[in-house]
Amino acid sequence: MQSLNIGLIGYGTVGQGVAKILKKNRTVFKNKYECDFKLKTVCDRSLEKKNTKFLGPVKKTKNYKDIIDDHEIDVVVELIGGKDLAKEIVEKALLAGKDVVTANKDLIANHGLELFAIAESQGRHLYYESAVGAGIPIIKTISETIAGNAFTGLYGIINGTCNFILDEMTTKKCTFEAALKDAQKKGYAEADPTLDVNGMDCTHKLAILTLLAFGKSVPVKDIYTEGIEDISDIDIAYAESLNLSIKLLAIAKESRGNLEIRVHPTLIRKTHPLASINSIYNAVYLNAVPMGDVMLSGEGAGQMAAASGVIADLINSSNAPNNPMFCNHSQPSRKLNIRRIDHIETKFYIRINASDKPGVLSQITGILGRANIGINSVSQQMHDNKMATVPVIMLTENTTERQLRSALNKIQKLDKIKGKPVAIRMEKL
Amino acid sequence: MQSLNIGLIGYGTVGQGVAKILKKNRTVFKNKYECDFKLKTVCDRSLEKKNTKFLGPVKKTKNYKDIIDDHEIDVVVELIGGKDLAKEIVEKALLAGKDVVTANKDLIANHGLELFAIAESQGRHLYYESAVGAGIPIIKTISETIAGNAFTGLYGIINGTCNFILDEMTTKKCTFEAALKDAQKKGYAEADPTLDVNGMDCTHKLAILTLLAFGKSVPVKDIYTEGIEDISDIDIAYAESLNLSIKLLAIAKESRGNLEIRVHPTLIRKTHPLASINSIYNAVYLNAVPMGDVMLSGEGAGQMAAASGVIADLINSSNAPNNPMFCNHSQPSRKLNIRRIDHIETKFYIRINASDKPGVLSQITGILGRANIGINSVSQQMHDNKMATVPVIMLTENTTERQLRSALNKIQKLDKIKGKPVAIRMEKL
Repeated sequence: MQSLNIGLIGYGTVGQGVAKILKKNRTVFKNKYECDFKLKTVCDRSLEKKNTKFLGPVKKTKNYKDIIDDHEIDVVVELIGGKDLAKEIVEKALLAGKDVVTANKDLIANHGLELFAIAESQGRHLYYESAVGAGIPIIKTISETIAGNAFTGLYGIINGTCNFILDEMTTKKCTFEAALKDAQKKGYAEADPTLDVNGMDCTHKLAILTLLAFGKSVPVKDIYTEGIEDISDIDIAYAESLNLSIKLLAIAKESRGNLEIRVHPTLIRKTHPLASINSIYNAVYLNAVPMGDVMLSGEGAGQMAAASGVIADLINSSNAPNNPMFCNHSQPSRKLNIRRIDHIETKFYIRINASDKPGVLSQITGILGRANIGINSVSQQMHDNKMATVPVIMLTENTTERQLRSALNKIQKLDKIKGKPVAIRMEKL
Repeated sequence: MQSLNIGLIGYGTVGQGVAKILKKNRTVFKNKYECDFKLKTVCDRSLEKKNTKFLGPVKKTKNYKDIIDDHEIDVVVELIGGKDLAKEIVEKALLAGKDVVTANKDLIANHGLELFAIAESQGRHLYYESAVGAGIPIIKTISETIAGNAFTGLYGIINGTCNFILDEMTTKKCTFEAALKDAQKKGYAEADPTLDVNGMDCTHKLAILTLLAFGKSVPVKDIYTEGIEDISDIDIAYAESLNLSIKLLAIAKESRGNLEIRVHPTLIRKTHPLASINSIYNAVYLNAVPMGDVMLSGEGAGQMAAASGVIADLINSSNAPNNPMFCNHSQPSRKLNIRRIDHIETKFYIRINASDKPGVLSQITGILGRANIGINSVSQQMHDNKMATVPVIMLTENTTERQLRSALNKIQKLDKIKGKPVAIRMEKL
């Protein structure tokens, strides 16, 4: 029987999940894959604080080089996160002739091409299924299973924290702050949730998906990104009344020969399958030619979900000598220019806080009219004595981002306007 | 460059789609897969009636043996449907040392094990991605991509015609007959829609999915099957009022060491992702351990969707000499007994047409009470002079099928009851 010797670097939550699955399923996997998946060495800088009892005779070390230098180890699992040290480990492992499995989205988003090239030059493989959507097989599905298709659009709900918060705000009719606190209490958000709620986590994942689906490497800094911090319960309630949902979407799509790539809160119709992705679930919706639309969804976070993505990669690796990856990651085949966010056209939902004085609505509509921005509907709540301002909500016709931003800047300067206007794009899916 | 010579048997809608994709993408595929996918011969018994002009120098024949006997042909695509001749073709092709791609769900559901064994003995592969869910990669996802998981539950919407009809009845508030007529007009239902609406099409597909996900071969005749013919607009409206959807579900799930396997209309909560699968879309929802729940959805029918499943199989075949399928289909590994439908417990929705005479409700509830069937809610519409009967609608607590059927038989015999009571199972997903 074939055997696969595994070196695990990073023994945190996911790492321990991987070790547990490997231990529990060793016999099952032997029967199913005719391969002995053997965890040989575990490396972590603070092993003494962690539960290593169940590991049994697995070798423990604090020095990752013990794994790189071990000629018996076939595959290195990198789960330390971060960029610099992780990159060093992955490079050295590939150069030492080992396959590598990583869950590190920062690493792949920023250095993917470089690392794939090293893997290719060494005849090795770099797997990263759990970098996007944890155990949901998004990477393998796009890069292999449905690789016979051309992709024209990709829409992802790929941050469980944000999806949970928006879902809570919808079902419990609570504020962003209350939903965030609840997410933290349930362990769905970090103590510092910045990278989740500001959209950057999605941006890293979108960079990876875009390389796979469109063969286009886009630097993370070139991806337009907006988080969900400015979404209020008023916006959610208004969306609900129109049978729309607000989701933080990661979007990459072809548009007249260019590529639109962006992450922002988006209004979509409630009957679209993506609107049914609730709580911490993730989903990726693809427009594929000739297959048609396809969606993959599932649990996008959690110890076992992420660990199962790593296990799937290990199973692939065990079959790897005979299973070259289909996509040649190091040679993107498509020549698509990125469409600048300024030139992207959508309908917009706008919310403006105005003091309830006569004339303010005509000033606002006047500015929009002069900017050639068509207004589809307007709603202004009645004045409430407790509130100094009332929200004016509008839906626009299609307009470019640049036109809208310029008009909103002018509106913001009106003396009857309080705070920054909120604008949420609507996507017709 | 590697080349793959293809023989196509059955040149109907899907076959022509396959030929078109192969012709259009030959260069693209060469670059992407380093393989020349070459359609060498097309076989059909009525070729003269079909559009073969665009095929160019492809050889045409009416005798499938021309393909089997051609030593240059590497892979045979069987798209004639049916059982006997299709089986003969697939067997002969495998025995002649060729890989086979088929979209034939009857064939795989009824003779899968036998054919997989032949394929294995010959060191060949039998692919059938488009037998379930057309181009949606359900087969590959379960058998390979997430094969590291154990599956405990599988819930499929796998018949586009039925899903379209139920969706039309819901959104247009029309009758079954009107929705069926609309489906036929749009080309989503055959002139004779029996095998779709009576659930048997789902049953074949469920047999295939159950073999893959649970390693259990279940004869089609042993799968409890109910179609959607008895669902009325009253049932749909009532379900809507409770925030439930009625879907034709194919279900296979472990239940106390046994396997439940059944196809029937099912009430599910509207917020479940399966409830958002509308129109002719298909979806499969899986409970996977350790990955968690995952759903795959997309266009489950149509020329190009089905053809793209065949293309995906051809791409796999081109990589096949080095890519043994993970699952050993010929040796199911699980020992699960089938739980008889009689013993399966669910909540039920019941609709009984009663003449609106005093006492009928107490007779019905009396029978249910003596059978120990708890009643969760009752709704009886006011008497309408135009109607001779009024529907009595009830939701029960958990009860076995056998208890319920026995009680409904007694109720049906009451002289104030008209027609057969309708019972729809509720599934807690």
